[in-house]
Amino acid sequence: MPMDNQAAPELQVSRWFNTPAPLSLAALHGRVVVVEAFQMLCPGCVSHGLPQAQRVRQVFAREDVEVIGLHTVFEHHAAMTPVALEAFLHEYRIGFPVGVDAPSEAGPMPRTMAAYGMRGTPTLLLVDRAGRLRQHHFGQVEDLLLGAQIAMLAAEPMTAIASSAACNVDGNCG
Amino acid sequence: MPMDNQAAPELQVSRWFNTPAPLSLAALHGRVVVVEAFQMLCPGCVSHGLPQAQRVRQVFAREDVEVIGLHTVFEHHAAMTPVALEAFLHEYRIGFPVGVDAPSEAGPMPRTMAAYGMRGTPTLLLVDRAGRLRQHHFGQVEDLLLGAQIAMLAAEPMTAIASSAACNVDGNCG
Amino acid sequence: MPMDNQAAPELQVSRWFNTPAPLSLAALHGRVVVVEAFQMLCPGCVSHGLPQAQRVRQVFAREDVEVIGLHTVFEHHAAMTPVALEAFLHEYRIGFPVGVDAPSEAGPMPRTMAAYGMRGTPTLLLVDRAGRLRQHHFGQVEDLLLGAQIAMLAAEPMTAIASSAACNVDGNCG
Amino acid sequence: MPMDNQAAPELQVSRWFNTPAPLSLAALHGRVVVVEAFQMLCPGCVSHGLPQAQRVRQVFAREDVEVIGLHTVFEHHAAMTPVALEAFLHEYRIGFPVGVDAPSEAGPMPRTMAAYGMRGTPTLLLVDRAGRLRQHHFGQVEDLLLGAQIAMLAAEPMTAIASSAACNVDGNCG
Repeated sequence: MPMDNQAAPELQVSRWFNTPAPLSLAALHGRVVVVEAFQMLCPGCVSHGLPQAQRVRQVFAREDVEVIGLHTVFEHHAAMTPVALEAFLHEYRIGFPVGVDAPSEAGPMPRTMAAYGMRGTPTLLLVDRAGRLRQHHFGQVEDLLLGAQIAMLAAEPMTAIASSAACNVDGNCG
Repeated sequence: MPMDNQAAPELQVSRWFNTPAPLSLAALHGRVVVVEAFQMLCPGCVSHGLPQAQRVRQVFAREDVEVIGLHTVFEHHAAMTPVALEAFLHEYRIGFPVGVDAPSEAGPMPRTMAAYGMRGTPTLLLVDRAGRLRQHHFGQVEDLLLGAQIAMLAAEPMTAIASSAACNVDGNCG
Repeated sequence: MPMDNQAAPELQVSRWFNTPAPLSLAALHGRVVVVEAFQMLCPGCVSHGLPQAQRVRQVFAREDVEVIGLHTVFEHHAAMTPVALEAFLHEYRIGFPVGVDAPSEAGPMPRTMAAYGMRGTPTLLLVDRAGRLRQHHFGQVEDLLLGAQIAMLAAEPMTAIASSAACNVDGNCG
Repeated sequence: MPMDNQAAPELQVSRWFNTPAPLSLAALHGRVVVVEAFQMLCPGCVSHGLPQAQRVRQVFAREDVEVIGLHTVFEHHAAMTPVALEAFLHEYRIGFPVGVDAPSEAGPMPRTMAAYGMRGTPTLLLVDRAGRLRQHHFGQVEDLLLGAQIAMLAAEPMTAIASSAACNVDGNCG
């Protein structure tokens, strides 16, 4: 499901793992960003989504493609705490940055998950070099197709990005 | 590694799931007992040990073979709490009884794990109809071999068991 | 599907591979015999049946359990010739004895396949130490169940076999 | 191993399956061509290469990407005849066009295989829209990487192709 020209909502993260400093989609402009939204106790995430994200990390260069995990806990909150997540990431040798999707007062669904209208986990998002949401996969997506989609985003010219990052004469920068 | 004539140490469990009443090896005399010792955040348990225990549950009749999970947490204690385990069992659809190995004051290794001298997880124990420990597998064991070992224990005559369960004239029962 | 007291029809083989001399069920009395009936161009045989037979060969001792492949070609006869089979066995590293089921003038189904009433490939037969057909699996059978069935046949006492191998006073041997 | 600006040697095929008319790389100019070189009795081809080629066929549109099998028999020639191949393609449900690499008088290696300097099977070749060999993978290649490579070739502009396909005023066409 292509989603042209739609700005990707910013990540709302209450805590980061595997990164010295907080990350944001804004700061990653210029790279393709693969966001793997998961829950540590979701069997499909453990058997499919996270191993696939690890393969993406190995196949694509970090200067072109950033891989971020997003722990979108919408059930069993008492079980999937940050402490539990930290142990999980260690045992499953997840090396890429992982953010804890910020809890919401509005309900069990955390903030970023709600902003993207995710239906569950695993969900994989592709954000292009200009920060636009281009793919939103719920459930499993084939490696062949995913590799093709990432490569096409990585191959896109930077022209549009340069213009969107231009500053106006009044000093406002895009 | 056959372990003839060795009585299996009793399970020391602080909490049970998936069973209306606490279980014990003593109460299961007469059946073969398969004990799957695992940790919910152990990748080899999730990908191999627990699915194998589920297959054992499906293939063998419960009147011959009982399958018990034992949550032997020896690391990341703050992550693998009973609350987290309950969510894990629900998400992974583990239907057989699971006991939480009782914590020990002596160190991070819980009591039953220590009593059996387990080296880690997953560990699979086979206890015969007479309550003796007959196999102790650490790591992966093939389904073909495990099926053979369980079947041979299930096929053993009950003679020895009957005698061990006899009561002496002074009223002491074995 | 247990098949008690049924004598297993003798193998009718036109050519053997991986054995210095022809084999027969009669000559294998005293051992459990696992017969893996397959076709070299049957996908389910290549992905499931033959690898399983190889695992049986590795797990059980040859003095207790003999594993025999039977090439039951009932279609594409021009493709699955003995010359082609020989190359197949070499490339797939099948080391156990394999017999070519003898062609029949009556139709495309070879002789042994017809005698057993096989429905297709893969088919796995279990013959007990006394030469009786005890299991007839068409399609896939789980390793756990197969391991259990083989072990139980291997554990059966030899009494009946000894008597059936006795010689009468008039010189006829069973 | 990128192989820029190298024209892909034409396929030399003695017989085609699954296509109403013979194919050639020349006639496929304008599309990316994925050539899966295999032998029907090569285990790695059956378990990895051919299923991957089938996935490529499903994921990419035929107007952009053509998938061709090439039966490069360099051993067991008596076993892997065209008759045997036809049965194999039927049983394994290979639906894309497959050519039999033409035998050579010079030795056991067929003509196209020799022209490409293939080291064995499976080998996967990627030919770009302009008919140039761009990737030559021997053994296994990951789906993610392959998907990326195919997509990037499919995304290349047709400019160079148009010019290379131009005809000179003297009547010679590139």
